[in-house]
Amino acid sequence: MDKFKRNERIASILYILTTNPSKVFTYNHFTDMFNAAKSTISEDIIVAKDLVEKLKIGYIKTISGAAGGVIYLPNISKEEEEEFLSSICEKISENDRMMPGGFIFMMDLLYSPEIAKKIGKIFASKFISQEIEYVVTIETKGIPIALMTAQILNVPLVIVRKDAKITEGATVSINYISASTKKIETMSLSKRAMKEGARVLIIDDFMKGGGTAKGMVDMMKEFKAEVKGVGVFISTRTPENKLIDDFISLLVLEELDENEGKLIIKPNLEKIY
Amino acid sequence: MDKFKRNERIASILYILTTNPSKVFTYNHFTDMFNAAKSTISEDIIVAKDLVEKLKIGYIKTISGAAGGVIYLPNISKEEEEEFLSSICEKISENDRMMPGGFIFMMDLLYSPEIAKKIGKIFASKFISQEIEYVVTIETKGIPIALMTAQILNVPLVIVRKDAKITEGATVSINYISASTKKIETMSLSKRAMKEGARVLIIDDFMKGGGTAKGMVDMMKEFKAEVKGVGVFISTRTPENKLIDDFISLLVLEELDENEGKLIIKPNLEKIY
Repeated sequence: MDKFKRNERIASILYILTTNPSKVFTYNHFTDMFNAAKSTISEDIIVAKDLVEKLKIGYIKTISGAAGGVIYLPNISKEEEEEFLSSICEKISENDRMMPGGFIFMMDLLYSPEIAKKIGKIFASKFISQEIEYVVTIETKGIPIALMTAQILNVPLVIVRKDAKITEGATVSINYISASTKKIETMSLSKRAMKEGARVLIIDDFMKGGGTAKGMVDMMKEFKAEVKGVGVFISTRTPENKLIDDFISLLVLEELDENEGKLIIKPNLEKIY
Repeated sequence: MDKFKRNERIASILYILTTNPSKVFTYNHFTDMFNAAKSTISEDIIVAKDLVEKLKIGYIKTISGAAGGVIYLPNISKEEEEEFLSSICEKISENDRMMPGGFIFMMDLLYSPEIAKKIGKIFASKFISQEIEYVVTIETKGIPIALMTAQILNVPLVIVRKDAKITEGATVSINYISASTKKIETMSLSKRAMKEGARVLIIDDFMKGGGTAKGMVDMMKEFKAEVKGVGVFISTRTPENKLIDDFISLLVLEELDENEGKLIIKPNLEKIY
């Protein structure tokens, strides 16, 4: 077996923990891997723990007891979050992103793995204490940010479909009114998609009237799930009264006037902090 | 500014490189961050470089010249890949996953961030030398594995839609014949989704006749893109002649007999190695 120096053990422990956020590793995992005593590993972990705090990338926590071990919980500093959200607002405002019908072209942002990961980190850090068991989203544009949130929380992603697909067996279907089309739409989820009574976090890219989010909340009732939070990337200022009261929105679309070419979007500092 | 010890610098460099795969960092990035001399940083990078090879998680490469710096390219060992793919085949075979119509229930696997990331790492390691500029997939089930592939290659994801959505401006549409429905279907992509003439990698979860993959290849022609590879998670043994010749499949579905309850799926060792 390869011998690891102290330098290498500390770096390896940090690598393993940070690439597996929210996952508990036993001390034995590391003592076996490095063929080292528990006291040695404990000292290494203390160095790693101090380092993640110095780098402001989250926390390493040690859990005692039979199911004990060590876990890395990512976090993003307020400054980094503000700076990131402001830079995204600039990007959205800068270019010619207005589409006919009052939509904003955002695929390049929402589908960028780097941006999606940072959005996921922001959502995850806000709900990390809620012991979330599933992240739930609806196809299609919200999937990347929801997947990244799920990855950081170390839980499965559940994707609600916009119509019943024959490939997923028995499904539960819900009707809802989409704010964008004003029509009654159907969303479906395979009965096997999640266990009953789970604690879930709903993530979506955009909220206007809240009809889609309300549909997902209703869908969760069918699975007896507890909705511990709803997070959307962008919500619109109007209508003020949405079908969902309790949600976190990272950005607020204050104004969008296609005819005048006016688009005002801001980080939602009131609601987040 | 905080002082960093050697231990901490090495671990931090490894953290920064491994959480940003395929991204070049200049030496200045690290000399500024740690307030250290270039020679010091060079020594630290050598330790990190040896360590990633010892851990068999990829390679750290140094690039000289004006655009020079250091980059981490993830890799997965053959043993780890084989072991992982075998374990997935076991999971698919073990449970009662056969759905009416000859489909397999796989959402729990494809939507698991941990599994999707590993699949992404396998795809990325096979195409890492191709200088891919976009990973392209079609909604919905392939999105998580495609996003993870894109993340590791450090390129944007492009999601082709199954019908033209009004929210994405002018679109290019292609008709294709889906093997599962035998019907003519339409796929669409926003004209602004990618620049012309790009080098792309197509990723999807499942291939039977190859109609959908062929549709995506045709779509890429409309963007004058060079398709540098097609990767699917599962392909079926039959039909032997698919509409696409050149693709990599990680698993092969040898047999699926709903009436007899027979499902045989294997890692595709011939084609991969």
